[in-house]
Amino acid sequence: MKVAFTSDNIAGASESVLQAMMEASQGDAMPYGNDDMTAEVTAMLSTLFECDVAVFLVSTGTAANVLSISAMTPPWGSVLCHSESHLLKDESTAPEFYTGGARFVGIGGAHAKIDPVQLKKIVSQKVGDVHTAQPSALSISQVTEVGSVYSLEEIRAITKIAKEANLPVHMDGARFANALVALGCTPAQMTWQAGIDIVSFGATKNGVMAAEAIVVFNPELAQSLGFRRKRGGHLHSKMRLLSSQMKAYLTDDLWRHNATHANAMMALLQDGLKTIPSIKINTPAQANMLFCTFPEGMADSLLAEGFAFYGGRWEEGVVRLVTSFRTPKAGVEAFVNSARRYHDAKLGK
Amino acid sequence: MKVAFTSDNIAGASESVLQAMMEASQGDAMPYGNDDMTAEVTAMLSTLFECDVAVFLVSTGTAANVLSISAMTPPWGSVLCHSESHLLKDESTAPEFYTGGARFVGIGGAHAKIDPVQLKKIVSQKVGDVHTAQPSALSISQVTEVGSVYSLEEIRAITKIAKEANLPVHMDGARFANALVALGCTPAQMTWQAGIDIVSFGATKNGVMAAEAIVVFNPELAQSLGFRRKRGGHLHSKMRLLSSQMKAYLTDDLWRHNATHANAMMALLQDGLKTIPSIKINTPAQANMLFCTFPEGMADSLLAEGFAFYGGRWEEGVVRLVTSFRTPKAGVEAFVNSARRYHDAKLGK
Amino acid sequence: MKVAFTSDNIAGASESVLQAMMEASQGDAMPYGNDDMTAEVTAMLSTLFECDVAVFLVSTGTAANVLSISAMTPPWGSVLCHSESHLLKDESTAPEFYTGGARFVGIGGAHAKIDPVQLKKIVSQKVGDVHTAQPSALSISQVTEVGSVYSLEEIRAITKIAKEANLPVHMDGARFANALVALGCTPAQMTWQAGIDIVSFGATKNGVMAAEAIVVFNPELAQSLGFRRKRGGHLHSKMRLLSSQMKAYLTDDLWRHNATHANAMMALLQDGLKTIPSIKINTPAQANMLFCTFPEGMADSLLAEGFAFYGGRWEEGVVRLVTSFRTPKAGVEAFVNSARRYHDAKLGK
Amino acid sequence: MKVAFTSDNIAGASESVLQAMMEASQGDAMPYGNDDMTAEVTAMLSTLFECDVAVFLVSTGTAANVLSISAMTPPWGSVLCHSESHLLKDESTAPEFYTGGARFVGIGGAHAKIDPVQLKKIVSQKVGDVHTAQPSALSISQVTEVGSVYSLEEIRAITKIAKEANLPVHMDGARFANALVALGCTPAQMTWQAGIDIVSFGATKNGVMAAEAIVVFNPELAQSLGFRRKRGGHLHSKMRLLSSQMKAYLTDDLWRHNATHANAMMALLQDGLKTIPSIKINTPAQANMLFCTFPEGMADSLLAEGFAFYGGRWEEGVVRLVTSFRTPKAGVEAFVNSARRYHDAKLGK
Repeated sequence: MKVAFTSDNIAGASESVLQAMMEASQGDAMPYGNDDMTAEVTAMLSTLFECDVAVFLVSTGTAANVLSISAMTPPWGSVLCHSESHLLKDESTAPEFYTGGARFVGIGGAHAKIDPVQLKKIVSQKVGDVHTAQPSALSISQVTEVGSVYSLEEIRAITKIAKEANLPVHMDGARFANALVALGCTPAQMTWQAGIDIVSFGATKNGVMAAEAIVVFNPELAQSLGFRRKRGGHLHSKMRLLSSQMKAYLTDDLWRHNATHANAMMALLQDGLKTIPSIKINTPAQANMLFCTFPEGMADSLLAEGFAFYGGRWEEGVVRLVTSFRTPKAGVEAFVNSARRYHDAKLGK
Repeated sequence: MKVAFTSDNIAGASESVLQAMMEASQGDAMPYGNDDMTAEVTAMLSTLFECDVAVFLVSTGTAANVLSISAMTPPWGSVLCHSESHLLKDESTAPEFYTGGARFVGIGGAHAKIDPVQLKKIVSQKVGDVHTAQPSALSISQVTEVGSVYSLEEIRAITKIAKEANLPVHMDGARFANALVALGCTPAQMTWQAGIDIVSFGATKNGVMAAEAIVVFNPELAQSLGFRRKRGGHLHSKMRLLSSQMKAYLTDDLWRHNATHANAMMALLQDGLKTIPSIKINTPAQANMLFCTFPEGMADSLLAEGFAFYGGRWEEGVVRLVTSFRTPKAGVEAFVNSARRYHDAKLGK
Repeated sequence: MKVAFTSDNIAGASESVLQAMMEASQGDAMPYGNDDMTAEVTAMLSTLFECDVAVFLVSTGTAANVLSISAMTPPWGSVLCHSESHLLKDESTAPEFYTGGARFVGIGGAHAKIDPVQLKKIVSQKVGDVHTAQPSALSISQVTEVGSVYSLEEIRAITKIAKEANLPVHMDGARFANALVALGCTPAQMTWQAGIDIVSFGATKNGVMAAEAIVVFNPELAQSLGFRRKRGGHLHSKMRLLSSQMKAYLTDDLWRHNATHANAMMALLQDGLKTIPSIKINTPAQANMLFCTFPEGMADSLLAEGFAFYGGRWEEGVVRLVTSFRTPKAGVEAFVNSARRYHDAKLGK
Repeated sequence: MKVAFTSDNIAGASESVLQAMMEASQGDAMPYGNDDMTAEVTAMLSTLFECDVAVFLVSTGTAANVLSISAMTPPWGSVLCHSESHLLKDESTAPEFYTGGARFVGIGGAHAKIDPVQLKKIVSQKVGDVHTAQPSALSISQVTEVGSVYSLEEIRAITKIAKEANLPVHMDGARFANALVALGCTPAQMTWQAGIDIVSFGATKNGVMAAEAIVVFNPELAQSLGFRRKRGGHLHSKMRLLSSQMKAYLTDDLWRHNATHANAMMALLQDGLKTIPSIKINTPAQANMLFCTFPEGMADSLLAEGFAFYGGRWEEGVVRLVTSFRTPKAGVEAFVNSARRYHDAKLGK
């Protein structure tokens, strides 16, 4: 089989992560996060984020997102997020479930980034009016659902509007590392220094098998999360399975190396595709995901050759390409070459 | 450190399980359970249970229990379970959360087994009366919370009462293997042939790191579980992490070997403790868990020596001892010897 | 004070309704709807709708709507409704609360009527995909939130799309009578014959103090509603308070007379305002509610004179005018005259 | 038909209440509680309770109870109440629904009053342990479900235990007036001065058609109740229907007069029944409800004569008798005479 750009969740895990899981699984350890390694992970994340953080490990990104947000809104609140966000598009009604039935309100904006003008309009609408869901929290995705990345200025502009309306802000960082590498800033700069209260610090898509950290910068919001995690059935008894993965992920900058590779492969892929006139880049990829439009027949031809990726879910001809920490360079080149061959054969040079 | 009888969740995993996790983590695989190994696990469980089953893998026992039960009751229903059950005692309000606010009603009975007489009285109470929570489902624990095991006759007697009142029955099988080994019957006999509709088939306490299978015998009850699992944030993207553990667990009867060892170590432990006059066996251990009462000072003395177990949570002097798939025989003997030494020294021969 | 067009919920009740409440409050009656009058109301509604219906009386419109819809969707479903509907705009998060956290999805369409093309696109999206809220029910408002009325053809076109996708359809009939009078059809034609499964048959805005009937045409959907109503705290003990109002409302066509008057007053009002060049009719009123745009200063001037209505909540200059069963003709004429005087004085003839 | 002791919810309303409803229904009034009369009711209740209170009017007792309690507990909390309380026995799963899935824990105690010893044991159990529902609120019923009345000392003893564990206390005062008259104390003494944070101040069972006031003494607990009431569908648009009833109920001590009559009739009834040797008083009636045990055949004989009351729901021979604000003295006497005649005829003098 040729290289697959289906998603970054089809790749396994980095060798050192697997090694760490193995080692951590030996011997006895106290359950439910009362083991040493879990404490170590919290310390490592505090160092990484340059401040004291509360950490809650879970095994899925949906759990990380909806638990985080559930700590931010009463059930009569509305949570503002982009209308194309993962929260609204791909997490079933987990958001409503975990918040006890809050309203999730989609806001527009180009390239799946929230438009500050629209946000400003809605953020303090009908405050105190019992008839209307009360704006209570904001969630942004970094990387976004279409592969774009908020600049630090953009994050700050948005969180400023939220904060002026007393709304805490969550960041869905399922691809946190890819965004950070793209921006070249520090984790602190991209989060609490930019107004983020809780981040879903994703690792599963970038080199671990199943581990996400809810990282809380605002201590008040952390108080209920232990109860919420247990109540959601997300408190692992053998927590070291999660903490060992996260520890390895944070050790020797593995997370950064993995994301750097994924982003570099995407850059190579994008640069290659740009040279093919019949392909249209829909949203320029800044991290490891690209939406582009192929000419008629190209997608089928590439799939027939053995490449894998998602298409047929969006507008006519639109495909999504995702690279990962283990996408091979040769695979990218082969893909571009195949696409070019198709173009040349069918559409002329 | 000496041997710990704290819980069966302090042990790691069997070697072959770890090996399987490692291997399964190589290469690409389709996400969300669309991988081959997940299909394989379903087939293996169908063979094991001698019927077609629907399987939903999750990573915690609480998730397995509350998702199972949520498929059985409307939010205005009452779910009957033993008043000492894990559901009522140790899963926060996850039961209420996942059922959308059903009522969980504790029923009494010796040794944490549901008393059929009490069950019969409550099972069809005020059916159709909108003022009263409607009896809708029954959940039993096998092994129970105090280490006893229902006989097949006992299970059948209880499910018969439930079925006559149209209540589906769930089995919390967090220690399924230990119970099965204790009874010496087949998985089919202990479940669907005895009237069970869904079992939480636990593996985490018996040799894997994190994997539980919701095994559904009643196809109608399976229909909503895919949606419920996703909505609860329990659908793993890299499902092979769970399926590989479960596959290894089911391969070459590992699950049975592990439970056989744990039960044997408990038998050894219990037999030893029985010979010490100052120790009272509260509930005779049939599987791998024992509640007994130590004379004053004995628990502290053993803890000071470096043994580990829970005490101080129940009546004066009551301790809980749990063996696992990797409890060493020498450790058990050392514990019994230490207890005997304490008895002899303090209480005379 | 001059006439108020604030809302139809500021008016009290028709004389015969009050009389009926008084009479019904004498003596003893069985509680919780087990009284004769409640049975009588069900019979009257069955006659009115020309089919056997199940009826659940409640005291608020929000309760009628959200209870109805809760019987139509699982918690992982999405409920489709107009983005300007009362459900989405004015009922807090009661919809999410009563459905156990379903998703409410706003659909566009001119004059607050659902656009069939948009509906068709969304109605069978990602069916069976656990990641996405599953289209499960449709709710339309008749009269709509801006005062327009669906024609029978329009209702049928929309319910046809829903039915082809297996979605039951709810009608929010808070202003049912006003819509019916506008269309000049039968209750059966506007509901079950046009594909409606449950209607919130509103009375409170049209001559009673507090009584709404959930009228269910699809017997299957009625089964859970008794439990849901009790569980929501909406089962009145002295049900005759509600049933007496509803009985009087249905007697001698009071409901039709009241709505006819309200609509006639609106027609008079609209006809008058149309003759004033500086006033723009936004949505032509078909029933008893009108949205129009006043020239600068006109609203303030009319309010200062003592008229009452809502403005300042929508686009610049937009006001909402609502007539009721007891809006006096002289009041309407006085309002039009005042508006005209303002126009003439400020904007010239 | 002869006098009915079925329940106090079978009686209609006092004349002045009906008169007030009629008058209040005339003319226009602002909706949703923004009318003058609703403000007046709050002022009257503040005077009555001798402190500033927040008031939320609703139309059912279940709504009053569950809304009150929902403001006191997080969804992972447990709410302590008597195992025979209305909350646990007669309100379906409304408690779980409104609290977002909290656990309701029944506590024992003679005559349906909470046993302080049992309460003390449970009130601070496993605080901070995420595995266990966290004790979060206490609810007591005054009058209790079996007709007994807590003394002020008893209330204080119980609330003291709760307060020491930081639990707010709710009083289900569906029969508040009957209890107060029985104790001969002030409303302040029986509530906030005795440690009550919120009372469901019932009126429906004592002379109005449908009106209950959630009276909040602790301002912090009042903050969310406006949102909760709307979200539950319990915010009446024509609020004056409720406020007029409550105003009349509070005017000229009507509430006290009605309860005094009901209690007096119960005293007469109880005194009469006590003189009949074959009748056993189960719980001495202190207010307007009595549980007693009739000899075989007596209940059937009285029902056959045309009297009405509930039996057959509890232990063999147990019947419940409830008097109301309009129970006629002659009816009570007739009942006692009939019972005596039966006794004399069947069981000898």
